[in-house]
Amino acid sequence: MNYKKVYSILNKDLKIIEKELENVLEADSPILKESSLHYLQAGGKRIRPVFVLLSAKFGDYNIDTVKDVAVALELIHMASLIHDDVIDDAYTRRGRPTVKAKWDNKISMYTGDFILALSLEIITSLEDHNAHKILSDTIVELSVGEIEQIRDKYNFDQSITNYFRRIKRKTALLIAASCKLGAIAANVPSHLQKKLYYFGYYAGMAFQITDDILDFTSTEEKLGKPVGGDLLQGNITLPVLFAMKDPELKQKISTVHELMDPDELHNIIQLIINTDAIQKSNQICTMYLNKAYEMLSDLPENDTKLMLKTMLNFIGKRNF
Amino acid sequence: MNYKKVYSILNKDLKIIEKELENVLEADSPILKESSLHYLQAGGKRIRPVFVLLSAKFGDYNIDTVKDVAVALELIHMASLIHDDVIDDAYTRRGRPTVKAKWDNKISMYTGDFILALSLEIITSLEDHNAHKILSDTIVELSVGEIEQIRDKYNFDQSITNYFRRIKRKTALLIAASCKLGAIAANVPSHLQKKLYYFGYYAGMAFQITDDILDFTSTEEKLGKPVGGDLLQGNITLPVLFAMKDPELKQKISTVHELMDPDELHNIIQLIINTDAIQKSNQICTMYLNKAYEMLSDLPENDTKLMLKTMLNFIGKRNF
Repeated sequence: MNYKKVYSILNKDLKIIEKELENVLEADSPILKESSLHYLQAGGKRIRPVFVLLSAKFGDYNIDTVKDVAVALELIHMASLIHDDVIDDAYTRRGRPTVKAKWDNKISMYTGDFILALSLEIITSLEDHNAHKILSDTIVELSVGEIEQIRDKYNFDQSITNYFRRIKRKTALLIAASCKLGAIAANVPSHLQKKLYYFGYYAGMAFQITDDILDFTSTEEKLGKPVGGDLLQGNITLPVLFAMKDPELKQKISTVHELMDPDELHNIIQLIINTDAIQKSNQICTMYLNKAYEMLSDLPENDTKLMLKTMLNFIGKRNF
Repeated sequence: MNYKKVYSILNKDLKIIEKELENVLEADSPILKESSLHYLQAGGKRIRPVFVLLSAKFGDYNIDTVKDVAVALELIHMASLIHDDVIDDAYTRRGRPTVKAKWDNKISMYTGDFILALSLEIITSLEDHNAHKILSDTIVELSVGEIEQIRDKYNFDQSITNYFRRIKRKTALLIAASCKLGAIAANVPSHLQKKLYYFGYYAGMAFQITDDILDFTSTEEKLGKPVGGDLLQGNITLPVLFAMKDPELKQKISTVHELMDPDELHNIIQLIINTDAIQKSNQICTMYLNKAYEMLSDLPENDTKLMLKTMLNFIGKRNF
């Protein structure tokens, strides 16, 4: 089975979720509606809804209940993407601040707030008290992760532990919450809920590490942004941390700054790729994928489990 | 009784709330802690906690339960103030964008997100399912209100209805929610919860109208910002809308823009004050205060009711 098959099996329900996302973003404020739908239409892999659906399939799967959870999780992800874009864009796009840029940013910020609040409004449809706590805890961690990312920018002396903690907060916990909340919504027995939670956590770690590797190994066309863009923005990821084990290369990498000459950056990226940093990062990624696999061992052998394994494989092998 | 007496009666519990606010903002991320506490220490009238406490006093008042609600509501208010400040500040403070300003803004934005999420985490301590829905609904409305405010900036053709809808979303609903959630936390009978909700709503409308009047009638010293600052920023408030009934004055007011000469602005403010706009705005404010009073008629005659009336009086008469 490959991941396209998973998407095709889930297609009907993913379409329901897509429709529901559109519905909830149909705000009665035209400006808000336009701004929200803009982000929705940008698309995405809908990884979080997929994990919600698959986790729910281990219990009393009912798309009417489960769709709310999937929608809420995707909205949180959207809101965090929107807030990620705020401020940076207006500067790089326009060079200098205009009233329009300022307003655009404010609108984006409040669109993010609105979407975040919508997600919480939607999750209240779940009676399970614990579900609300999981969701708000996850958002707290997400925002702490974002702040740590800002703090750690261009900090070439940060530790690998620091990196792991950051991606846990920024990515892995939300995928873990997707699995757990999908399971809660379908009344999956609690010992299996726990396994699914950790499955999501490890899968999420692998997902982010893969993303961080692709920033170096993929192409501008596939990434939709320049290769090495993370590094240019000061995000010190796992491959960079491994590459910096070489003091001489570390010294070069430490010269990276926002307005660096593209050729110079390209040169540094090549030096990083020529080390064993990518290979080492892949090893760590594989370790997380294996941990995720292990979590599945207590789950019943069925098509859903096969689909989860396929998704893991997709995370490990994807090249976009 | 005057409002100082109310604060002194509630003093012990307000201190508990203040301590709790400090505790929850003790994030394990130093940068986040510093940023959050900065806003906390800026103080404020803690109007929302006061209304939570007073509403709860009509039921089984227990500070341990009620404090969570008060803390959650004050955090939402704080988060909205923080997001209000994002972007504008960096421009006016520094003239042009620097990396530092950009980071500062991002940190403020995520601090707001963090505090918002914290408030939701805290409210999960309330078992009442409805409470979560009220809170997330309120945040949705709040962000819609913020977006409408941006959209309506410098729009000199907006209607008074537009203004009322905006301040309802931006201010009144949060105070209404404070009263309602305080009542829920103390198991106040549901027909009285409803009265308290509307009490809070009308009090909130009056509160915001008073704020908007004070922008013209108070002093820079008391406001902590220049007189007419709202107008300068393009926020078209009730006094302005009344003043614009005069076509000639409307024409003058419509010339207001962000970088206007202070003397010219001062001149326009004087022209507004010289109309009956302030008096008319006060009349509307009084109408809302009266409606709030009416809502209290079904509540038992006791000291708490007297305190609510005192707070109403404070809202109507305050000059800061």
